[in-house]
Amino acid sequence: MTSSNLTFRPATREDLPAIVALLANDALGEKRENHTLPLPASYEAAFTAIDQDPNNELIVVDSPDQVVAGVLQLTLVPHITYQGGWRAQIEGVRVAANLRSSGIGKQLLLWAIGRAKDRGCHLVQLTSDKARPDAIRFYEGLGFVPSHEGMKLHLDASVDDSTTPASALLRPVQGDSQD
Amino acid sequence: MTSSNLTFRPATREDLPAIVALLANDALGEKRENHTLPLPASYEAAFTAIDQDPNNELIVVDSPDQVVAGVLQLTLVPHITYQGGWRAQIEGVRVAANLRSSGIGKQLLLWAIGRAKDRGCHLVQLTSDKARPDAIRFYEGLGFVPSHEGMKLHLDASVDDSTTPASALLRPVQGDSQD
Repeated sequence: MTSSNLTFRPATREDLPAIVALLANDALGEKRENHTLPLPASYEAAFTAIDQDPNNELIVVDSPDQVVAGVLQLTLVPHITYQGGWRAQIEGVRVAANLRSSGIGKQLLLWAIGRAKDRGCHLVQLTSDKARPDAIRFYEGLGFVPSHEGMKLHLDASVDDSTTPASALLRPVQGDSQD
Repeated sequence: MTSSNLTFRPATREDLPAIVALLANDALGEKRENHTLPLPASYEAAFTAIDQDPNNELIVVDSPDQVVAGVLQLTLVPHITYQGGWRAQIEGVRVAANLRSSGIGKQLLLWAIGRAKDRGCHLVQLTSDKARPDAIRFYEGLGFVPSHEGMKLHLDASVDDSTTPASALLRPVQGDSQD
């Protein structure tokens, strides 16, 4: 599969059932997703949030034989680190089961890397579950380096709530804010 | 150090020199940052982008003795995965060298976790350089699980440009987008 017979485009709301079906058709995804129709409203709300945010792009790839043959989300994030550099983050990569190993996944990632360059990013990052060694090798083959631990904290787990509540966010600072 | 004598607040533009100085005062950061004054314009531009984005929060903590005793960036991201769940991502965590091991770092992270809950996130995630084993242990102590590889691709490295250019983003899809 080369890029010439693939179409990369922003997802539309009408693609959402196909996207969720892709995400659910996976050993890890099947435990997390719910692709019964109509979809849970939370999917629609997330689509709206992504669609309205110029720094989030939900991208699908269409092959000659299948609309929504693959999907990924690209998030562009401004950071102070690296002298104010922008990063692109990739999440939710999935290719249709019948098309895996066809090269579509590679083309989708290469497209996303090109998009990140066009958007002025100096770095593309993603995390890959250590339970997916094939995926990790795939990303290494594209030049990604597993230099970091990807650490997750699920908030249904217990969290020490003794900290200052976030409602104190707007508490005014005492004194001059320069030092 | 408890949270009661700390103030957590959004950074202001006037904090930027102190924030960049913190980021530069670190074995990895000193190679990446430039805290000569006036700061490179790229820092100001990144601050503006963060400040204008309701889903990005640059948070500083003030201690009784030091304004901008620590900093982190919290990015809230809507995703289709996990049934349209929002995630909070933490980047650029740094505490002033003279205050490390004082407990400020822990309080800053606990504050950010509380903020992520308040913003409706189901997951907090971060990546930590494998060259920082102390940091990884610190995050594990807060409940973070190193379940993922954190993979980075620096775009000054060579990238296969044979993919479809991102300018094809808006190429219309052929056919019906539902399947």
